[in-house]
Amino acid sequence: MARATDIRSNVQQGLDRAFNPRTVAVVGDKRAMGYLWLRSMSTFQGKVYSVQIDPNEIPGIEELDVPNYSSLLEIPDEIDYVVCAVPRQVSPRVVADCIEKGVGAVTLFTSGFAETETEEGVQLQEQIREMAQSAPGGGLLLIGPNCMGIYNRRLGLRHSWEQPAGDAGNVGFISQSGTHCINFSLVGDRHGIRCSKTVSFGNAVVLDAADYLEYLAADAETELIGMYFEGAKDSRRFFRVLRETARVKPVVVWKGGVSAAGARAIYSHTAALATAPAVWNAAMRQAGVVQADNLDETIDAVKALVYCKPGTGYRMGLIAMTGGQSVVITDAFEREGLEVPLLTAASYEKLSQFFNIIGGSYRNPLDSGGTIGMGFLPQNLQKLLEILEEDGSVDAIAMEVGAGFLARRMRENPAILDALLDTLSAHRERSRKPFIAIAHAGHLEDVSTMIRSRLLERNIPPFASFQAGAKALRRAIDYWRFRDGLD
Amino acid sequence: MARATDIRSNVQQGLDRAFNPRTVAVVGDKRAMGYLWLRSMSTFQGKVYSVQIDPNEIPGIEELDVPNYSSLLEIPDEIDYVVCAVPRQVSPRVVADCIEKGVGAVTLFTSGFAETETEEGVQLQEQIREMAQSAPGGGLLLIGPNCMGIYNRRLGLRHSWEQPAGDAGNVGFISQSGTHCINFSLVGDRHGIRCSKTVSFGNAVVLDAADYLEYLAADAETELIGMYFEGAKDSRRFFRVLRETARVKPVVVWKGGVSAAGARAIYSHTAALATAPAVWNAAMRQAGVVQADNLDETIDAVKALVYCKPGTGYRMGLIAMTGGQSVVITDAFEREGLEVPLLTAASYEKLSQFFNIIGGSYRNPLDSGGTIGMGFLPQNLQKLLEILEEDGSVDAIAMEVGAGFLARRMRENPAILDALLDTLSAHRERSRKPFIAIAHAGHLEDVSTMIRSRLLERNIPPFASFQAGAKALRRAIDYWRFRDGLD
Repeated sequence: MARATDIRSNVQQGLDRAFNPRTVAVVGDKRAMGYLWLRSMSTFQGKVYSVQIDPNEIPGIEELDVPNYSSLLEIPDEIDYVVCAVPRQVSPRVVADCIEKGVGAVTLFTSGFAETETEEGVQLQEQIREMAQSAPGGGLLLIGPNCMGIYNRRLGLRHSWEQPAGDAGNVGFISQSGTHCINFSLVGDRHGIRCSKTVSFGNAVVLDAADYLEYLAADAETELIGMYFEGAKDSRRFFRVLRETARVKPVVVWKGGVSAAGARAIYSHTAALATAPAVWNAAMRQAGVVQADNLDETIDAVKALVYCKPGTGYRMGLIAMTGGQSVVITDAFEREGLEVPLLTAASYEKLSQFFNIIGGSYRNPLDSGGTIGMGFLPQNLQKLLEILEEDGSVDAIAMEVGAGFLARRMRENPAILDALLDTLSAHRERSRKPFIAIAHAGHLEDVSTMIRSRLLERNIPPFASFQAGAKALRRAIDYWRFRDGLD
Repeated sequence: MARATDIRSNVQQGLDRAFNPRTVAVVGDKRAMGYLWLRSMSTFQGKVYSVQIDPNEIPGIEELDVPNYSSLLEIPDEIDYVVCAVPRQVSPRVVADCIEKGVGAVTLFTSGFAETETEEGVQLQEQIREMAQSAPGGGLLLIGPNCMGIYNRRLGLRHSWEQPAGDAGNVGFISQSGTHCINFSLVGDRHGIRCSKTVSFGNAVVLDAADYLEYLAADAETELIGMYFEGAKDSRRFFRVLRETARVKPVVVWKGGVSAAGARAIYSHTAALATAPAVWNAAMRQAGVVQADNLDETIDAVKALVYCKPGTGYRMGLIAMTGGQSVVITDAFEREGLEVPLLTAASYEKLSQFFNIIGGSYRNPLDSGGTIGMGFLPQNLQKLLEILEEDGSVDAIAMEVGAGFLARRMRENPAILDALLDTLSAHRERSRKPFIAIAHAGHLEDVSTMIRSRLLERNIPPFASFQAGAKALRRAIDYWRFRDGLD
């Protein structure tokens, strides 16, 4: 039997081939699924082949300009990556063909295995596991079953036809759920998060989360890793790889199945076994992993880690546009364990020179609507930002933008938004402190969505609520503190 | 001196006149504010008068077809409600005129008083307080200063020109912040919440939160009360009125200034003094008040209270569209202290007859994507809802709608959404259990926004995330448990 390190090395080489394929074969795509797989592969920069024996399905495949074969073995090319979408009963035959063909890896999209808690499903899963693991050359790399497999944005290798393709990304994602994997890439893209490589791995009967994590930890293109995780068969190895990975790049983990019924739900989903929450939380803290509770929090934490300057201090300088929002932004940041200190005497001296205190205040939070003005005075905003940048009591800055009257003004007069963006961009260039912007949806959802996307163009991370911004920033700061050995 | 009950009775009669005025006067509106007040009053069904002595401002006012006078005293009509927007130095003169004119109440929009922590501001505030309280006939009802005053949707009496007008509402709102008061009405309207009467009351130097609460508690049109609150001068009276009110109608309170710096912020905002969080929380629990942490949570809790059948049990039946979302919906509801029990044997027997377990499961949560189908099978959804309705282990139902593939299908084929709405409407007619729908934004924000608004048309409350739905439903259930004496 080969030594564990050799096997790992083989796995990593095989995954590198599968994540960066030159050729792909889709087995069993069909009209009833809207040719999901072949349509998703339409952006793939390498060659795509189809395997389908149903004569009713073949014309539809040929319309997509994809060459079809009646078996993997008949394809006159090496195959780096296979997606298998056949009914579960047929899957062992496809696995056998993959082994004989010597493919790089196969994703079993097919479901109906152990997660159904039926005898047939359990037996079929055991059968394909044995076949894959006993295959020559260290085994067949089998992804899944019950999953969506690999997405490589740069190569246009997709598992949903809505995913972006053709340009490079820097965020990896590993997911036990296909839905969450696709949503991370799609929703994340709207938040300025570009995926490098992602993988949905379902029941994980051969390859498990730790294998993918090792791969993305070593992947030069991937600077940060997000994860939706339910359970690992080898928890000790998973925690070890997680610790090693978080030392070199940020890892954000969203754990599914934290509750009692949640544990039942993950078993029905991917047949994964839950970890006790106390054990889990202790292991994550020790590993320096950023934890998130749902997709939105995962995306927000990744956004803060990607876009904010790395900062390790908890003391906030806060800018809001009205008295009511000044109270709320303060509560939101303090609820997340961030501090809102008084500023230095030097800052107060400078602020007293120009700050409008009728309907405003500047003790921190800075209630700045009247000072920044109905018509928007960029020079005053610039002064506020400079004062907070120089203030030794302030580690990071958060600002409410595009809410209420200012949002309306920006809709009426785009030059105001441009001036705001220019001022914030210039600040970002000079500043060494983390900065986030909050543009709540309010009732002008279209305006705030537009403002958030314009902020992202300037690499300024926008959040949809004070709470979301505070949570994300706290998580990013916690990670940089861990990396600096501060906690 | 008059007895306390007489004074209260005078206050309540005066407030009734001010909340339901036949005549309104705006003092000091001007072009630099975009004639905020007169434009807001354009929908008012009674008479509007302006008072302005600056000759540069008068032509702009006359263009709005509002008769202008040089003093309140010159208006040849009784005045039920006055909004005063003059500079702070001038405000005592306007207060004197209000007293002489015998108006119902005056809102001082003017700011720059005690909240500025300046000697001039504190002295001016003391001056207007003394004038108002020593006025003949039990005193002048002075709302504010530093506030937006009254909004009566039915009468078109507004404090923002974006607010809806002309139709009746059933939700009252009391707010120490103008921003939050306006946002509750505007954002709330998008969530199907129609305001009856709201008031923003700022520094509360004469009338305080308890006065408005007593008024809305007795107001027949107002079935539910929301509140943004910073601090009361007479906390004992405030807590007493709150307890009395929550016994007759639901009260949702969002407390601003819960943290140390938050307390500093509320002082700079409305010069309010904070209550210690432990005291506050105990008082709220004892009073049966629903607590919320921000505007979104306030709106969500009100929405659940307005639209859900009153239910007092915590056991959820959950329906999601994929395995990944089944895990997440379960975690979200259990995190909020709701339960996700196994169903009865009778339910499992019925489900086993038709439920598709390949890529699905039905132990609870129900992973129903395959059963409801890509093409949407209303009869299967109806069966699921009937089974959960009849199941004695289930107290309330939450369902994921309009996410992922189903959202895309609804965009392509509106008949699918219609069929879904019909099925849910029919269930709502029959059902006695609280029901909520979750339509996450995902990456198809326009589709989910559209789906949420269509759900509201059928009186089915939609939420934008599992977490938001779970929090809101938990709060509604807690209120009904309090009303039933269960906690």
